[in-house]
Amino acid sequence: MRRADAVALDVRDPLVGFRARFVVDPQLVYLDGNSLGMLPMAALARLSAVAGREWGERLVRAWEEGWMQLPVSIGDRIGQVALGAAPGQAVVGDSTTVCFYKLASAALDARAGRRTIVTDSENFPTDRYVLEGLARARGMSVAWGDPSVIDEDTALVAYSHVDYRSGRIAPMTLVNARAHEAGALTLWDLSHSVGAVPVALDADGADLAVGCTYKYLCAGPGAPAFMYVRRERQGELSQPIWGWLGRRDPFAMEPGYVAAEGMAGFLSGTPPVLALACVDEGARLVGEAGIGRLRAKGIALTELVIALADERLASWGVRVASPRDSAVRGAHVALAHPQARGLCDALIARGVIVDFRRPDVIRFGCSPLTTRFVDVWDAVDVMVETLREVG
Amino acid sequence: MRRADAVALDVRDPLVGFRARFVVDPQLVYLDGNSLGMLPMAALARLSAVAGREWGERLVRAWEEGWMQLPVSIGDRIGQVALGAAPGQAVVGDSTTVCFYKLASAALDARAGRRTIVTDSENFPTDRYVLEGLARARGMSVAWGDPSVIDEDTALVAYSHVDYRSGRIAPMTLVNARAHEAGALTLWDLSHSVGAVPVALDADGADLAVGCTYKYLCAGPGAPAFMYVRRERQGELSQPIWGWLGRRDPFAMEPGYVAAEGMAGFLSGTPPVLALACVDEGARLVGEAGIGRLRAKGIALTELVIALADERLASWGVRVASPRDSAVRGAHVALAHPQARGLCDALIARGVIVDFRRPDVIRFGCSPLTTRFVDVWDAVDVMVETLREVG
Repeated sequence: MRRADAVALDVRDPLVGFRARFVVDPQLVYLDGNSLGMLPMAALARLSAVAGREWGERLVRAWEEGWMQLPVSIGDRIGQVALGAAPGQAVVGDSTTVCFYKLASAALDARAGRRTIVTDSENFPTDRYVLEGLARARGMSVAWGDPSVIDEDTALVAYSHVDYRSGRIAPMTLVNARAHEAGALTLWDLSHSVGAVPVALDADGADLAVGCTYKYLCAGPGAPAFMYVRRERQGELSQPIWGWLGRRDPFAMEPGYVAAEGMAGFLSGTPPVLALACVDEGARLVGEAGIGRLRAKGIALTELVIALADERLASWGVRVASPRDSAVRGAHVALAHPQARGLCDALIARGVIVDFRRPDVIRFGCSPLTTRFVDVWDAVDVMVETLREVG
Repeated sequence: MRRADAVALDVRDPLVGFRARFVVDPQLVYLDGNSLGMLPMAALARLSAVAGREWGERLVRAWEEGWMQLPVSIGDRIGQVALGAAPGQAVVGDSTTVCFYKLASAALDARAGRRTIVTDSENFPTDRYVLEGLARARGMSVAWGDPSVIDEDTALVAYSHVDYRSGRIAPMTLVNARAHEAGALTLWDLSHSVGAVPVALDADGADLAVGCTYKYLCAGPGAPAFMYVRRERQGELSQPIWGWLGRRDPFAMEPGYVAAEGMAGFLSGTPPVLALACVDEGARLVGEAGIGRLRAKGIALTELVIALADERLASWGVRVASPRDSAVRGAHVALAHPQARGLCDALIARGVIVDFRRPDVIRFGCSPLTTRFVDVWDAVDVMVETLREVG
C-alpha cells in the first residue's frame, strides 16, 4: 500500500466533503477527534449569532424565543440521528459526569434495597469514580466485572458502550437482557459511540444512557452531555438534583418541588445556551452525514489503521490492542507499545496528534466526519520514522 | 427632577465609559441585568478567539496550554475582585444549581446526625428545591425561617445574600456567627450580589458560597457558577459527585477516587471552556471597574428608582417593596402593584425590559456596569405613561 492508495480512498469517500466544513490546520494530522472533535465552521457561525444577536440584542427575551427549548429539542435531535431513540427520551444538560451521577443515583433509588452496582475496571474513570461515590454514600458495593457478576442483588449495571481505551463495543442487547432478567437497570456511557457507532437504545432495551458531545459530535471543549431515559422508566425515576429547571412550571417559583413531566424533569439548572448551540450544530452534521455512512467510514478508517500497523509497525513491536473484528470495534484503534508515552510525545511534536492512555497505549482516533484515509497513512508513516529514530 | 438631571448624573458617573464596552441596543431601556447581564464586547472577542484559535487550531493541545487551569484561575479572580476571598478558595464549575447541591450535600455529610436545614421561603427557588431534595433523601427536614430557628439540630444554614425579589441584603456576619455558635455550617447564594454588592466571605466567616455568573458578571446565558469553600473547611468536606476532574492526578485514570487537594477536589466533569472564557471577561470588567465603585453606583441608581417611584408612581398605587435603607439593599428595586404582570408586559412591549416576580412585583435591575441614570428615568417615565393609559 502506498500513500496514493490512501488518497484514492479519500477521493471515493462519500463523506469527503464534510472535512471542508471544519476549521482545518493543513500542517496537522489530527487523530484525536475521539477526545476533542474539530471545530465545525457552522458552530463558529452559530456561536457568533447566538452571542452577538441573541444574547447581545434580544437579551433576556431570548429565553422565551427558543433558548428554553434547546435542552429538549437538541436531545431529541441527538436521539434521532445517533441513538435510535424516539422523541421525548433525551435532553442535553450538565457535564457527562453530572448527567451520569443523576441517572445512576435515580436508578439506585428505584432499586433501593439491592446492594451492588456492576461495572468494569475498563469503564471510563469518571464513571467508575461516580459509582464508587454513590456506593460509598449508600453503603453499597461495586462489583467489578463482566455481566456474569450480575445477580439478584444488583441494582444497576453500568458500562461504556465503546471502551475508551481498547475501542471494544459491548454487547448492549445482551447486557440489557441479562440485567433485566435479574431485575436491575442499565446505564450506558455512549461517549465513545455517539456520532460514530450507531446505537439503538429503544430497540436494544437500554434503560438509561449518557454521552459526551465534544468527541464525535464536535460540540467543543467541555460541551454539555445528553441523558437518555427510556420512556417507560421516566415515571419511576427521580433524579437527585432538584433544580428549578427540572420543576413543573419553573417560573411560577412556587414552594415545593414537583418534577416536570418527561425529560424536563431530569434537568436541574439554567441551560448553558452558548454550548448548547454548538451541540446542536454537531448533531446536525451527524444527521446530515448519516450515522450509517459515518459507521461505514469509521470501520474503513480503522481497518486501514490495523492493516498499516500490521504491515509497517508490527516489526517495531507495535501491537494492535483493539478488536480486529470491526463488528465489535468503535472508531478508534489502540496501538500498544512499551514506549508508548515517549512515542506519543514524539508524534505530537511532529504534528501527528494522537493520545496516550496508560500503561502502553496510543489511540488513533478516526472521527469519520473529519479524518481522511491519508491522515491515517501519514500518521503511520511518521510513526515508522519515529520508531526508526528511537531504535 | 427632570430627564436632564438624570443625564447630568450620567455625565458625572466615573463608570460611564463601561457601557460603551457592551453591545447596546439604543432603542432599549434594559433594566434586567440582574437576570441576564448584557454582552461585553470583550466576551464576544474572547469567544471568537477561544473557539476559532484555541479549539479550532490548537485542538486537544489547548487543554495543557491553559484550559485546564481556567476553573481555578477564574475562581481566584472572582474571589479577589468581588468576594473578599483569598486565592485557593473558589472555582468555577457547574450550573448554580449543581454547585449548590454539591456544597450543600458536602455540608450535610460533615454534620451528619443533625436533622434540620435552615433556609427561608424567600430563598431563590432552585436553592429551596435542592435543599428539599437533599432533606428528603436523608430523612432530614427543612426549617423555614430567619436565623432564630437555628438550633443544635441544624446541620446547614443556607440563605441568599441578596434576596432575588426584594433585593434585601441578609446580615451575613450575624448569620455566620449564629450558625457557628450552634455548630452548623453556612452556605450563601451570592447570585444577586456578585459584581454589584461587595461580599467579604473570608472576613465575615462564611463557610460556603455559590453564585451565578450570568447576572452582574455578564458571562452569558446559563454560564457556569462559582463555588467558594473556606480554606479551613476544605479538608473536612467531600463533595458527592466524584468525577475525574475532581480526582488527584485525573489523567492517571487510576482505580479508586482520591479527591484532589484544595478547590480542584470540588470539580466533577470537564470544564466548559467557552463559557468559562466569558466568565473570565466578566470578572475582569468587574475588577477593572472596582467593586467599591460598582456598589456606589448601584446605590445611586436604586436611590433614583425609589425617589422617582415616590415622586411619580406612588399616586398610581405603586409601592416600593425593597428596603429603603441602601445599606441593606442590593442593586435592584422591587416595585409592587396589583397589576404588576400586565404592567410588566406593557413595559417590555415598549422597550423597557424589566421582569415580573409573583405575585405582584416588577424588578428594576440596576446593573452598575451598564445601566445609566437616564435609563432609570426613562423606565419610570414609560411606566407613568403606561399607568395613565391602563388607568
